[in-house]
Amino acid sequence: MKSYKEMSKEELQQEYKALLAEYKRYQAMDLNLNMSRGKPCREQLDLSMPMMDTLNSDADMCCEDGTDCRNYGVLDGIHEAKVLMGDMMENSPDNIIIYGNSSLNVMYDTVARAYTHGIMGNTPWCKLDKVKFLCPVPGYDRHFGITEYFGIEMIPVMMSPEGPDMDTVEKLVSTDESIKGIWCVPKYSNPQGYTYSDETVRRFARLQPAAKDFRIFWDNAYGIHHLYNDHQDYIIEILHECKKAGHPDMVYKFASTSKITFPGSGISAIATSENNLVDIKNQLKHQTIGHDKVNQLRHVRFFGDINGMEDHMKKHAEIIRPKFEAVEDIFAENLTGLDIGEWTKPNGGYFISFDALEGCAKKIVEEARKAGVTLTDAGATWPYHKDPNDSNIRIAPTYPPLEDLKIAATLFTVCVRLVSAEKLLKEA
Amino acid sequence: MKSYKEMSKEELQQEYKALLAEYKRYQAMDLNLNMSRGKPCREQLDLSMPMMDTLNSDADMCCEDGTDCRNYGVLDGIHEAKVLMGDMMENSPDNIIIYGNSSLNVMYDTVARAYTHGIMGNTPWCKLDKVKFLCPVPGYDRHFGITEYFGIEMIPVMMSPEGPDMDTVEKLVSTDESIKGIWCVPKYSNPQGYTYSDETVRRFARLQPAAKDFRIFWDNAYGIHHLYNDHQDYIIEILHECKKAGHPDMVYKFASTSKITFPGSGISAIATSENNLVDIKNQLKHQTIGHDKVNQLRHVRFFGDINGMEDHMKKHAEIIRPKFEAVEDIFAENLTGLDIGEWTKPNGGYFISFDALEGCAKKIVEEARKAGVTLTDAGATWPYHKDPNDSNIRIAPTYPPLEDLKIAATLFTVCVRLVSAEKLLKEA
Repeated sequence: MKSYKEMSKEELQQEYKALLAEYKRYQAMDLNLNMSRGKPCREQLDLSMPMMDTLNSDADMCCEDGTDCRNYGVLDGIHEAKVLMGDMMENSPDNIIIYGNSSLNVMYDTVARAYTHGIMGNTPWCKLDKVKFLCPVPGYDRHFGITEYFGIEMIPVMMSPEGPDMDTVEKLVSTDESIKGIWCVPKYSNPQGYTYSDETVRRFARLQPAAKDFRIFWDNAYGIHHLYNDHQDYIIEILHECKKAGHPDMVYKFASTSKITFPGSGISAIATSENNLVDIKNQLKHQTIGHDKVNQLRHVRFFGDINGMEDHMKKHAEIIRPKFEAVEDIFAENLTGLDIGEWTKPNGGYFISFDALEGCAKKIVEEARKAGVTLTDAGATWPYHKDPNDSNIRIAPTYPPLEDLKIAATLFTVCVRLVSAEKLLKEA
Repeated sequence: MKSYKEMSKEELQQEYKALLAEYKRYQAMDLNLNMSRGKPCREQLDLSMPMMDTLNSDADMCCEDGTDCRNYGVLDGIHEAKVLMGDMMENSPDNIIIYGNSSLNVMYDTVARAYTHGIMGNTPWCKLDKVKFLCPVPGYDRHFGITEYFGIEMIPVMMSPEGPDMDTVEKLVSTDESIKGIWCVPKYSNPQGYTYSDETVRRFARLQPAAKDFRIFWDNAYGIHHLYNDHQDYIIEILHECKKAGHPDMVYKFASTSKITFPGSGISAIATSENNLVDIKNQLKHQTIGHDKVNQLRHVRFFGDINGMEDHMKKHAEIIRPKFEAVEDIFAENLTGLDIGEWTKPNGGYFISFDALEGCAKKIVEEARKAGVTLTDAGATWPYHKDPNDSNIRIAPTYPPLEDLKIAATLFTVCVRLVSAEKLLKEA
C-alpha cells in the first residue's frame, strides 16, 4: 500500500472519504467490544476448573509439615507453595513470601511500608520532602497509580526492545538520592511485550544508587506467559545477579498466578533477599496472621510442580496465540506501508503496543469508542496519564472471542487510518 | 475452701508445700498443651468441610449479576456476599466492602490509610506530631500491635462488664484533638467475653470528639459466636445509632468468617457510612483490582443466607461450650473461696479472662510454661505488654481437645494457687 506520507492531497482526501464511509458502516453495527484490559478469556479460566476438585470435602487439608491449612498461622506461606512459586520465579523458596490473591496488593503494600516505616532502617518516605521513582515508558498504569497516590514524583525513562534506557537510569539513580525506586516489567513487558536484554539486567544489578533505600520493583508478571513453544524469551535472574554484584538487597521481585489460574483468586509472592524478608516480616506480622493457606495448598495440589505449571501455560498459549496472530495479521494487512503506525510482535505476555502518528492516540481511542470498541485510554501507559507525543495505545487481545477480536482489530485499523489521514490533511 | 488470706502462716506453708508436690507431678507428665490463642479446634474446622464441595469443577462460577467470579474486578465484593456479611453484621449491603481472609488486615489497612492519606480530607496522621488511641483494657494484643507499630500513643481505659469506662472515654475524646480512635470488641469482648450495655453503645454514638477524624474501630469479631442457645447477649447496632445521633461517619465496623468457616481462608468485611466507603474505595482502587471473589461465592453457596450461618454457629457452640464449661468448673472447684483470683463466665466469644492477685500473672504464666502448658503472655492484654498490676491472664479454651484442656486448666489452677501462696507467704 502507498504510504500516506507520499500521497497527494487529492489522494489523501479520497482515502479519507472512503475511510469515513467504512467507519460509518462499523458504527451502524452497534458493536460492544472490549480490548482494554489484560483479562484472560473464559476458555482460559476453564483450564483451571479441575483445580476446584483438588480440595473437596474429603481432602487432607494438611500441608507437608502437618500444618492444618484451614487454621491460623504461617505468616509467610506454606513451604510447598514457596517451592512452587520459587521455581516459577527462579528463586529459592527461602527467598519467598506467599501473599494473597493480588501481586498489585503486594506492590502497594511494599510502597506503603517504605512510606510509613522506611526500608531497613532508612527514613520513612513520608518524612522526606521529595521521593521520586523512575518509570520506564510506555508502562503499566496501575504501577504509576500506586506511586502517584503516594505523591511520589514519577520520571519517565524511554523503553527500547532491550529494556529501559540504562544510560539515563544509571545517571539518575547514581546522582539523585531522592530516587527510591524504578518500576520494571522485565519480561514480555506491559505494554510492548519486550524482554530486557542480558546487558540491561546486568546493568540493573550493577547500579550504584545514591539512595541506600533504592529498590528495583521487578514485576515479573509474565515470567512463564509464553505465546510460542519454539521462540520464547529468556531473562537473567535479577536476585542472583544483584547478589553477585554486591547489591543483594536492591531488588523486590513480584509475581502471581493471576494469569495462570484465576485472576480473582490466585496466589501471589514476593522474592527478595534475607535482609529484606526480615524487614518485611517485621511489618507483615502486624498486618495479618497469615494469608489464605487453603488456596496455596489448592494451587500446589493442582500443579504438583513447576513442570505441571509449564504444561498448563502451553494450554493458555494455544488459546491466546491465535488472538495475537489475528491482530498482528490484521494490522499487517491494513497498515503495512502506510507509515502511520508501528506495533510490537511479542513472544509472550498480554499486550501489543501500538504507536500512532504524534497527536493521534487520543483521537483514535475516541473514534473506536464511538463505534463501540473500548480500548485502554490513550495516555494510560504514561505517568499522570500524560503521553507527551499522544501516540501510544495498548492493545489487549486476550479477552474477546476471536471473531469479535477480528472485528475490533479491523475497526481499530480503520480508526488509525481515518485519524492519520485527517491529521495529514490538516498539515497538507 | 478457706481463703488464703485468712490462713495462718503455718497453714499457708503447708498448703504451699502440698502445691509444690502437686506441681512437680505435673512437671513429670511432660505435657505440651496450648491455651494461648483463640484458634478453633479441628472438629470446628471439619464443620465447614462441605463448603469445599460447593464450588467443584462443574460449578457455575458466576454470581447473581452474571459476573464471572474467577476473573478480575468487583473492587468491593460481590453483591450476595455483601448481603450475607451485611446480615451477619446487621448492616445494609450498601454499607459493606468485602475484603480478603483477614479482618486484622482490614484494620491494619484502615489505620495505614489514615496514617498515609488522612480520613476524609483530614491531615494524614503521619504529618501530625502526636496521634493517640484509647485502648479499653484488658483488650486484644493484635489491636495494640497495630497502633504501636504506627507510633500511636495508647491510653488504657478500664473495662467493666458494661464496656469501657465511658466517663473517661467521653472526657478524653471531647477534649483531646490528638485522640483519633478507640479499639472496641463490643460483643463477647477479647478477653473478658463482656458485651457492651445499651447505655454504653448509646454513649459511644453520642460522643462529641474534638478531632474531626476520630473513628470508633468497632471490631465485632464475635457477633454471632454464642456459646448458648438460651442465654445470648445482644448489642445495639452502632452504625444506625451513630447515624441517629448525627455522627454517621464516626465508626468503622469490622468482622470476618475466620471463626465461622476457616481462620486461614474466610472472608472479611468492613461496614461503614457512605462517606467513609467513598474515602476507602478511593484508596482501595490503587491497592487491588479486587479481593478473592471465588471464596466469596463459596461462602455464599455454602451458607445460603444468614439463617444457614446461624445454624452453623450452633454446631460450633456444641463443640466449644463443653470446653468453656470444663474450664469454669475446674476454676470453681479449685479456686472458689480462696480469694486469689476472679474469672469471667462469658456467653460467647473465644476467651475467659482471669485476674490473679497483683504481681502474680507473669509468674503464673511462667510456672505453667515450665510444666508444659502455654498461655498467652501475661501483659499481652495491655498496650505495650504492660499490665500495671501484673494480674490479667487470657485463657483460650477452644483449641485443645477436652481431656487435654482439663489437664491444662487444672494445672493452671495449681500454678495460680502456688504463686499466690508464695506471694502471701512473702508478705506474711
